[in-house]
Amino acid sequence: MKLIRFGNAGKEKPGIELNNGERLDVSGFGEDFDESFFGSNGIDRLESWIEVQTEELPNVDLETRLGPPIKRPSKIVCVGLNYAKHAEESGMELPKEPVLFFKATSAIVGPNDDVVIPKGSKKTDWEVELGVVIGQKASYVEEVDAMNHVAGYVLHNDYSEREFQLEKEGQWVKGKSCDTFAPIGPYVVSRDEIADPHDLDLWLTLNGETMQHSNTSDLVFNIPQLVSYISQYMTLLPGDIISTGTPFGVGLGFDPPKYLKAGDVVELGIKGLGTSKQLAKAYK
Amino acid sequence: MKLIRFGNAGKEKPGIELNNGERLDVSGFGEDFDESFFGSNGIDRLESWIEVQTEELPNVDLETRLGPPIKRPSKIVCVGLNYAKHAEESGMELPKEPVLFFKATSAIVGPNDDVVIPKGSKKTDWEVELGVVIGQKASYVEEVDAMNHVAGYVLHNDYSEREFQLEKEGQWVKGKSCDTFAPIGPYVVSRDEIADPHDLDLWLTLNGETMQHSNTSDLVFNIPQLVSYISQYMTLLPGDIISTGTPFGVGLGFDPPKYLKAGDVVELGIKGLGTSKQLAKAYK
Repeated sequence: MKLIRFGNAGKEKPGIELNNGERLDVSGFGEDFDESFFGSNGIDRLESWIEVQTEELPNVDLETRLGPPIKRPSKIVCVGLNYAKHAEESGMELPKEPVLFFKATSAIVGPNDDVVIPKGSKKTDWEVELGVVIGQKASYVEEVDAMNHVAGYVLHNDYSEREFQLEKEGQWVKGKSCDTFAPIGPYVVSRDEIADPHDLDLWLTLNGETMQHSNTSDLVFNIPQLVSYISQYMTLLPGDIISTGTPFGVGLGFDPPKYLKAGDVVELGIKGLGTSKQLAKAYK
Repeated sequence: MKLIRFGNAGKEKPGIELNNGERLDVSGFGEDFDESFFGSNGIDRLESWIEVQTEELPNVDLETRLGPPIKRPSKIVCVGLNYAKHAEESGMELPKEPVLFFKATSAIVGPNDDVVIPKGSKKTDWEVELGVVIGQKASYVEEVDAMNHVAGYVLHNDYSEREFQLEKEGQWVKGKSCDTFAPIGPYVVSRDEIADPHDLDLWLTLNGETMQHSNTSDLVFNIPQLVSYISQYMTLLPGDIISTGTPFGVGLGFDPPKYLKAGDVVELGIKGLGTSKQLAKAYK
């Protein structure tokens, strides 16, 4: 199942996308795609509810804006340097254990919303990432059991301001949390639809030119390892997103570096998780 | 006004604490103390509602557990090394601009709940901090206007596992986000009740012995500076907490360091913001 949320920002309704691309309104189910939904086997319950509907579900016009397919999770936990080649281009050694940082949930937007280059930013960069969506609460979870805590997957562009992240005092969070820096979607794909999350092509283009192209088989720490590891340090709640890191090809890694300017178009995708597209705009 | 939330964890109801220590149930107001409440002048509206009540508000038994006085904010933004003397004891230079990090909101508990020493932890430490509670959404706010975005203040113990924070790969968040590591309260005090937030004594004792004792006049970056600075990097939402840093006297700073063991009792307070008390327990 593919979960979407559609409509104006802040007023999104829940829906689903069918394999033929059609979108259906499931607001009649009476729940939004939030912590409570994911934490109570919402995907299964929604599937059962759809099966017993006698009336056809309303169609969603394909021109309608897509919002983030998860309603404000409690946190986005990001993993740094988790593709061997990207660690290399950042001039950093491969980590011996996952490097974690947070991204403010106030940065979340819809998959095709504009990305706003923050005031004073000269180094706004892109990062295509596989997001893991938590289903069941996870605290001190063993690797063998970790996948039972995963509800599904979502495409994420982990926008990053490199000066704010790396040249300011302290921690990375400053360069990761600007508004619009977390477009997620188009949809959350339920776990059962992805045969092997560790063998998915992912890519990102800037104005049509390929910047990133890799495969999740290159992950340093895989999904069960990440879920288990993070759950030793904090409780993952239903709907929380683990953004598993980005492959080679971010702007920072070019010589000279490439950064976003107003008018640039960023497109990205992961096999099975759909595509998204952001137009870069200057902060006004 | 002093806002409390009382009752069992996850089922708290909103209330207020009067200056005589009495606690009243204001659940009849029909709102919890969350983003929507703080973002819509909730404190003023609640005050007006209380004035026109013809029936007496129900008393809350003083034995009833206090929960966190804010219902799950979108984020806790913490400031590192923001008291001159604490930076010194950590062996770090005074920052030229605020050092920011996040703490998972899943770490939030009531003011007098037990603090759980995480599995494998040897270095669980305390940090008494003044928390600033955001009232109005803040994005690119000027210092002169910053206090208009503040709803009030709250006492916070920013528990920290020093090995997880400083000796693991990467960022501090691992040592800051364990469950129970963010006891907040007893109450949110509205801004009008604190004449000068930059002249408040704060203290913390371990088993009755004073560990920390300072005054917010020693803050390196004051509240308007912090609100303004943070709002350049992310949007602060109503209910969000800025934890302004801790003074000299954390366990890490002793020679040899002092860390929590099961059975220890931590008490802390800030003038005008009340006191809290946590019993340290081993993870079971």
